[in-house]
Amino acid sequence: MARSTAWSRLASLIGIEHPIIQAPMAGGSTTPELVAAVSNAGGLGSTGAAYSKPEDIVKHSRRVRELTDKPFAVNLFAPLPPPGEVDSSRMLAVLARYYQELGLAPPQAPKSPMPPFEEQVDAVAESGARVFSFTFGIPPAAALERLRARGMLLVGTATTVREAKLLEEAGVDAIVVQGSEAGGHRGTFAGPFQAALVGTMALVPQVVDAVRLPVVASGGIMDGRGIAAARVLGASGAQLGTAFLTCPESGISPAYKAALREARDDGTVVTRAFSGRPARGLANTFTEALGESEDILPFPLQHAATSALRSAAGARGDTRFIALFAGQGAALSRGRPAAELMRELISESEQLG
Amino acid sequence: MARSTAWSRLASLIGIEHPIIQAPMAGGSTTPELVAAVSNAGGLGSTGAAYSKPEDIVKHSRRVRELTDKPFAVNLFAPLPPPGEVDSSRMLAVLARYYQELGLAPPQAPKSPMPPFEEQVDAVAESGARVFSFTFGIPPAAALERLRARGMLLVGTATTVREAKLLEEAGVDAIVVQGSEAGGHRGTFAGPFQAALVGTMALVPQVVDAVRLPVVASGGIMDGRGIAAARVLGASGAQLGTAFLTCPESGISPAYKAALREARDDGTVVTRAFSGRPARGLANTFTEALGESEDILPFPLQHAATSALRSAAGARGDTRFIALFAGQGAALSRGRPAAELMRELISESEQLG
Repeated sequence: MARSTAWSRLASLIGIEHPIIQAPMAGGSTTPELVAAVSNAGGLGSTGAAYSKPEDIVKHSRRVRELTDKPFAVNLFAPLPPPGEVDSSRMLAVLARYYQELGLAPPQAPKSPMPPFEEQVDAVAESGARVFSFTFGIPPAAALERLRARGMLLVGTATTVREAKLLEEAGVDAIVVQGSEAGGHRGTFAGPFQAALVGTMALVPQVVDAVRLPVVASGGIMDGRGIAAARVLGASGAQLGTAFLTCPESGISPAYKAALREARDDGTVVTRAFSGRPARGLANTFTEALGESEDILPFPLQHAATSALRSAAGARGDTRFIALFAGQGAALSRGRPAAELMRELISESEQLG
Repeated sequence: MARSTAWSRLASLIGIEHPIIQAPMAGGSTTPELVAAVSNAGGLGSTGAAYSKPEDIVKHSRRVRELTDKPFAVNLFAPLPPPGEVDSSRMLAVLARYYQELGLAPPQAPKSPMPPFEEQVDAVAESGARVFSFTFGIPPAAALERLRARGMLLVGTATTVREAKLLEEAGVDAIVVQGSEAGGHRGTFAGPFQAALVGTMALVPQVVDAVRLPVVASGGIMDGRGIAAARVLGASGAQLGTAFLTCPESGISPAYKAALREARDDGTVVTRAFSGRPARGLANTFTEALGESEDILPFPLQHAATSALRSAAGARGDTRFIALFAGQGAALSRGRPAAELMRELISESEQLG
């Protein structure tokens, strides 16, 4: 059957048993232990390395390779033009109140926290990862060519049919389709993000029809039902992020895990409050306070300006100021060890298909 | 298997062969010919009668029964509290410009166009419909009891887990879960509509787990792939609206049908511009001009104030001012006769099952 062919295509390409991808995520969630556990279970673990220094990417990947000899992925943000001169005084004044509330010194004028992209690519080239995945756009052709020459597969992120076609033209090997349900940053890079909030059920078949590449469904997939649905929609794989956040191997704070377990289907918002780029997470004091403020700084300056606040809140278990990135299926979180969760996902989806 | 049981449950209850529901829609789309063709093909046709006078509901249903002896549904809006005193002068001034552009006399202060709900219920009771479906809330218990006593099944609409539980408590027989991809009015009635824009992939399994009733998936489902996905997500049926809008039997204007065939995945917006309640449709001059204007009147006054404009635009094929309600999967529209489309949907979904 056509769908079976599609479903086996990505797994064959990567050399994994099950086309179930643990999404790259920030905030220290994708520890080497999580990435390796998913890969060892026959899926594809992914390191979210967008904010990582080159030496940390190398170190992290070395540790992953100590824990598994299976394929894994490393993910970066495609480089964005620098934000230029920005007056951050109004946002800093807003944030100062919350910094004070946690006993922190007032925030200073933020600087971009992003390590140089080319150096990150150097580190990815040395990482031993089978897959280089990316979001926020399309990295320079030279970087892609270099990683491809190392034998790595290239996987881009699309939130619309148009973006999927642009990625296909750029020569990627597969496309992660990010439905509007997805937690974390929106990958939108061609057009306004609001219009690009397309639900997984609508988006996946349209992208499958529009490109020849293997398509990975993401957004709202939390269990074997979602994986089986991705398969019948014509995808070649399913990517799950939120489902892995509550695993004991995930590096997020206990308070964040607790918030995920208590999440509601209608409890998330898409907000620029944490990083300056739209991202979906659980609504909390911080997202409500900043709302759609016009003073939110462009990415990555807002990320830098809120960094110490988010860290301190995470350390204290104060969910009011943590970036509680989560998809709309968060309430289906299980909190199982990653290997056990993978066994359940595989078994449930196979029973449905 | 559990899913097969769930999938056969709704069809058995209603007495239809395939749990594929043609969504109730406004704008004259659900002609007797469309409703009957879907029911004759083994699905459930639905008349969108929310704005219909009682005598028109009776007449329409009589015609449906002439065309089919199979079960069909009639849908109403649950009655809302009247909007009270509203100053419509600013909105009328905005609209006057567009009325003039189409050569129409300026709009007058709008009055509610909704026929008395109790009289509509009287007509539904006489309609011969097997199913009474509704949205925007929960009708008064007496109305539900009355229709139930006539042997009719009651089907409510939920956009969140919370709403699904409220419907279950109210004693409905099944719940249509409306994912954020869906075209037309949002059914949200408990909480703000923005938070209740939950994607079908995330929403369906959470509702299935939360209630004991049969759940019908809707939002972004356009073909056999979507129907099969609904089934593996645990739904007992799939409701498709946009997919039927381009059928020759659908009563919408040719210009509207043409716009649907040219739709893009990222071409819709959720707007209050046409009726005063949030609804998803293709972006056009009117949605862009009104945007999120604070002068938009409460439902149903905005509907009344824009009514003549929308009618004239439809008659002239001027898509700038038509309410082009559509889901995010509109680009997958086929334009086939309803019986043929039903055969394709059934065959495609069974091949994937």
